[in-house]
Amino acid sequence: MIVTLHAGAPVATTDAIVAAARAAGCDSRTFDDGHGGTVVGIVGTVSVSEYPGISSVLEKHRPYMLASREGRPYAPTVVKVGGVRIGGGRPVVIGGPCVIEGREALLEAALATKAAGADILRGGAFKPRTSPYAFQGLGEEGLQYLAEAREATGLPVVTEAMEPDHIPLVAHYADMIQIGARNMANFPLLRRVGQANTPVLLKRGFSATIEEWLMSAEYILAHGNPDVVLCERGIRGFDTTTRFTLDLTAVPLVKELSHLPIIVDPSHGTGRRSLVARMALAGLAAGADGLIIEAHPDPDSAQCDAAQTITPAELASIIESGRILHAALLGGTGENEREHVSSSVTLHA
Amino acid sequence: MIVTLHAGAPVATTDAIVAAARAAGCDSRTFDDGHGGTVVGIVGTVSVSEYPGISSVLEKHRPYMLASREGRPYAPTVVKVGGVRIGGGRPVVIGGPCVIEGREALLEAALATKAAGADILRGGAFKPRTSPYAFQGLGEEGLQYLAEAREATGLPVVTEAMEPDHIPLVAHYADMIQIGARNMANFPLLRRVGQANTPVLLKRGFSATIEEWLMSAEYILAHGNPDVVLCERGIRGFDTTTRFTLDLTAVPLVKELSHLPIIVDPSHGTGRRSLVARMALAGLAAGADGLIIEAHPDPDSAQCDAAQTITPAELASIIESGRILHAALLGGTGENEREHVSSSVTLHA
Amino acid sequence: MIVTLHAGAPVATTDAIVAAARAAGCDSRTFDDGHGGTVVGIVGTVSVSEYPGISSVLEKHRPYMLASREGRPYAPTVVKVGGVRIGGGRPVVIGGPCVIEGREALLEAALATKAAGADILRGGAFKPRTSPYAFQGLGEEGLQYLAEAREATGLPVVTEAMEPDHIPLVAHYADMIQIGARNMANFPLLRRVGQANTPVLLKRGFSATIEEWLMSAEYILAHGNPDVVLCERGIRGFDTTTRFTLDLTAVPLVKELSHLPIIVDPSHGTGRRSLVARMALAGLAAGADGLIIEAHPDPDSAQCDAAQTITPAELASIIESGRILHAALLGGTGENEREHVSSSVTLHA
Amino acid sequence: MIVTLHAGAPVATTDAIVAAARAAGCDSRTFDDGHGGTVVGIVGTVSVSEYPGISSVLEKHRPYMLASREGRPYAPTVVKVGGVRIGGGRPVVIGGPCVIEGREALLEAALATKAAGADILRGGAFKPRTSPYAFQGLGEEGLQYLAEAREATGLPVVTEAMEPDHIPLVAHYADMIQIGARNMANFPLLRRVGQANTPVLLKRGFSATIEEWLMSAEYILAHGNPDVVLCERGIRGFDTTTRFTLDLTAVPLVKELSHLPIIVDPSHGTGRRSLVARMALAGLAAGADGLIIEAHPDPDSAQCDAAQTITPAELASIIESGRILHAALLGGTGENEREHVSSSVTLHA
Repeated sequence: MIVTLHAGAPVATTDAIVAAARAAGCDSRTFDDGHGGTVVGIVGTVSVSEYPGISSVLEKHRPYMLASREGRPYAPTVVKVGGVRIGGGRPVVIGGPCVIEGREALLEAALATKAAGADILRGGAFKPRTSPYAFQGLGEEGLQYLAEAREATGLPVVTEAMEPDHIPLVAHYADMIQIGARNMANFPLLRRVGQANTPVLLKRGFSATIEEWLMSAEYILAHGNPDVVLCERGIRGFDTTTRFTLDLTAVPLVKELSHLPIIVDPSHGTGRRSLVARMALAGLAAGADGLIIEAHPDPDSAQCDAAQTITPAELASIIESGRILHAALLGGTGENEREHVSSSVTLHA
Repeated sequence: MIVTLHAGAPVATTDAIVAAARAAGCDSRTFDDGHGGTVVGIVGTVSVSEYPGISSVLEKHRPYMLASREGRPYAPTVVKVGGVRIGGGRPVVIGGPCVIEGREALLEAALATKAAGADILRGGAFKPRTSPYAFQGLGEEGLQYLAEAREATGLPVVTEAMEPDHIPLVAHYADMIQIGARNMANFPLLRRVGQANTPVLLKRGFSATIEEWLMSAEYILAHGNPDVVLCERGIRGFDTTTRFTLDLTAVPLVKELSHLPIIVDPSHGTGRRSLVARMALAGLAAGADGLIIEAHPDPDSAQCDAAQTITPAELASIIESGRILHAALLGGTGENEREHVSSSVTLHA
Repeated sequence: MIVTLHAGAPVATTDAIVAAARAAGCDSRTFDDGHGGTVVGIVGTVSVSEYPGISSVLEKHRPYMLASREGRPYAPTVVKVGGVRIGGGRPVVIGGPCVIEGREALLEAALATKAAGADILRGGAFKPRTSPYAFQGLGEEGLQYLAEAREATGLPVVTEAMEPDHIPLVAHYADMIQIGARNMANFPLLRRVGQANTPVLLKRGFSATIEEWLMSAEYILAHGNPDVVLCERGIRGFDTTTRFTLDLTAVPLVKELSHLPIIVDPSHGTGRRSLVARMALAGLAAGADGLIIEAHPDPDSAQCDAAQTITPAELASIIESGRILHAALLGGTGENEREHVSSSVTLHA
Repeated sequence: MIVTLHAGAPVATTDAIVAAARAAGCDSRTFDDGHGGTVVGIVGTVSVSEYPGISSVLEKHRPYMLASREGRPYAPTVVKVGGVRIGGGRPVVIGGPCVIEGREALLEAALATKAAGADILRGGAFKPRTSPYAFQGLGEEGLQYLAEAREATGLPVVTEAMEPDHIPLVAHYADMIQIGARNMANFPLLRRVGQANTPVLLKRGFSATIEEWLMSAEYILAHGNPDVVLCERGIRGFDTTTRFTLDLTAVPLVKELSHLPIIVDPSHGTGRRSLVARMALAGLAAGADGLIIEAHPDPDSAQCDAAQTITPAELASIIESGRILHAALLGGTGENEREHVSSSVTLHA
């Protein structure tokens, strides 16, 4: 059940609804509605008609109550990563190597990523590798290099966490925690990252439906973390000419169903360098709030995902084209119309 | 085997190669290379080194020899439909109703399509319907209305043919013959349309790989018709929230592998009106040579595919946005650089 | 609307219902219900309550009215191919080469197929080939050899028809007409084979849902041909280790939804010789009414589909194991319990 | 690199190879070959030709070295769960409720499962649920009930672990640890369960290729746990009539590629009660070493997966039919021919 309160509704109304839910044995969550008001999501149904200040009551809603458009009716969520706003109108570009290979290598890559015009730096310290014999990442050592690269470039950093116990460690070093495609339905991991105060980049599972994906976002929101950015990175398809099938329709569909920002990963989505630029632009034209792209000063020598990794020069060219495309489609207006930042969630168990 | 001859190579060389192929029991096809020269495709391998004027000889090539980039090395194909050039740089928009419902209805839809800025009119006279009890189209009567609508609007028309015997009839009325997704591997139909002198719009099968699709184009080319436009219209996926999964990566991939133009169908590709505009723009950003979109003056009353049909006003808005997007990405240069028109194929059986 | 009449219902009732349907502008079809009674399928709804002899009236039914279980409530359909009954309890095996390579080769293969214990001979005269340059089959010459092989072995024969105009020709030579996977939604072909008096083997399309497949069967039934056998032959999947993904769940699901017999093709379904035997047995255990298997005296030299073709000795072993498996699961009772043969359909347009 | 030593090869040879690998910086693993000999798997290549007692050296092998047939050349692995042998010839049936609902409920279900003839009891204490608001299982309390049910019935028990930290807890109570489909590529979880001394039931991911699945098994083997049973439980498909597409071809394919046992889950694989029995039998006919089936004394009231849950009576009937089918296909010989039990792995990092 989703109850929305006007801006200026008495605080006593929120308290009374939360108390009524608790009395009925139902968990509830309180959210900012993005417009000065408050949203109370209740896992169940209670009577609320007697309280003043209520603007709407939805007893029927999508199973991802908090992640749905109805769960934040007046404005899409903007997630702040360091000083970068994802969902705020201007498309954001996350760039960098697949895996952190060493201090010098990362620093070089980070400076090149910054010079190319990217907003956020990526780099893997814990890597999910299909083979137990493949390089699994540098672990905490890699996180330290990532923090150094942030110092050197001023770019916020995002990196993947693969197990619940690593969330505090990763949160200590990174500005955003990535949950990879293989872990989209790793519910213990989602729970733990839902308890963190760090924004989350939630990649879509290889064969997850849109609803399953939003339910995974719901896990994070329901545990108290409102800062979720979705990432379409390709689904399993029958044509193995490309590594995955990039499902760009997910972009406008997610925007229709949810208030969360969504970005596109054309590197994993295609698996082929030559296709990255075009699919990056297509992602932006589809309405994505940003891109995440694997770039490396010497792609052919990259320790991981070399076939889909581009040079910083190519990254710069994509960023430039993306800016032009975005400006053209906006007709010069632009980024201020959606400046609403997500707020905290309060849990009332 | 693909043999390419310089512009100005002696005609005797072409003749000699064709004769050598025939002597070896191999079929061959002669094509314009888009640059003044000639390409000879041979189903097999013969010795050609002694002839003057040869610029390249490829013994290993993709199985879709004629449809491959190597089969027309210097320029992508431009297909002329009436006076409209598909593949010539400027994206082309095909619009109109799913099915021809009657003379007045079609005329109204056609005028609205023209007013919206579309380049070509679509409308089905022979409709592939999943149910034998559903309306199957008006047949030849519908084709006559389509020809009237062309008179009234000046727009060239495209319509589907479903069986080999209908090709001459459809070719008589239409400027372009559509081969639908269900018939992409209907080889007798491909053969027959390959013998026609009318351009072909070849939709991708529901679960066709890119290679299978290009092999179907090869059927048409190999039977003598060089004017094939490919159409990505969505593949089968596991998430039934959308009717199909629009595989936009097919666009840059086809451009990498083939010289044939490719357009995108965001109507069938999504099955939802609200997603058509965004996916149309994404298709153009991916590099498509055009779009095919179902539009109807009163979408809710459309006899077929109502859920994915938009209004002429929405079509006009997409066309306008598409023009802006294309101009922005071209940076003002634009459409003349690819003005090369496909020529005829000559068969030497 | 499906109206079922008791055995012994007055003929006048059938006539009156058909007349009422015609008066209302609705097509209707009359079928034997497999139990002495009659089923009238009406494309629409008319009032029938006043007539005597009616046992049930279904206004709501599946879109494949005639192919649904409700369309033949008392007994599954048994299709007679020559003297062989498909759906009659005893699993039937169709064996033979992918393509007819020549008179001697076919005769040798046919005799080996017969010796292996198969019930029906298969062999392609018109072959759907992905490449226009591949051998496309011997055409009518192949059909003649097939008829000779029938003479020599006594086995009924099944072969594919790919275009509407070939249906009379194929029906002239063959006991059963195959509609291949690529043509499952070739509606003109389905219409034409629906007008033939020859049983049809309807393969499932590469990415057809069960409902779409049964709708294709409905096309055939609705045009007057009651003798349709379905064939599960694998669907497109993401793991290309096997050629297709054999969807054996289709077998019990089709039996739940429809009265039509269904067989399994483990050759195309796997694309690998080593997997054919196990998947054949699995198909029978799933409840299939039979198997179709590619066998060739010298599989490695087969002109088509060599990788999935087995020897006659392997075929004999599968047939033997299948007989044992079937007998074990039946507990010794066996084949007589389902001896109901499909009858003719009468069309009342 | 895979080095196989004869039975009776000097221990010094094994030691020398391991030392040579370590000197070259390569990890190695030592396995029983199922025939008295020893297999050394080396992550890399070293020279071993000088040592006595070597029967074969494979420098090229599949990426899942230890899980491949070559990694245990003489006999398939038999996994012992309590006193039950999986892979020993006789198909094993794991039955029980989806989720542990309470002490009494589980006890009732366990006794009914035992009475039906099942070999192992299943029941979930930690449940992966798509919704954060759905019942997530009783946790350790559920594990205690499971241990009580084992006491009461004598059946070994299998239950799922979802996070690395729970492995010791689950191993304390259960005889076998299930890794669910959503966690097939949760590599930290695989690593941890690879360090446990408890057999593992590794379900296939929703869209995992056979190779990816065997690579996940390799993670477990490479960390020291040889007792892995694979479970085919359906993959994502485009037809949502069934919950998943049960890919039975995986059964003979896995047997061709690997020495590990494989069982089939027709409950999740179909999602429909009416299809469970047939697909269970089909799984056995495909060669599966066993089945895992959801059964509940009152399926309609099951808290989870009710639509696919059958009664103990139906379970008994499937087990009976399965025994008959297996006996018939074996021709009376049977289970002793594959009595080879997996041994321990020794790691030499």
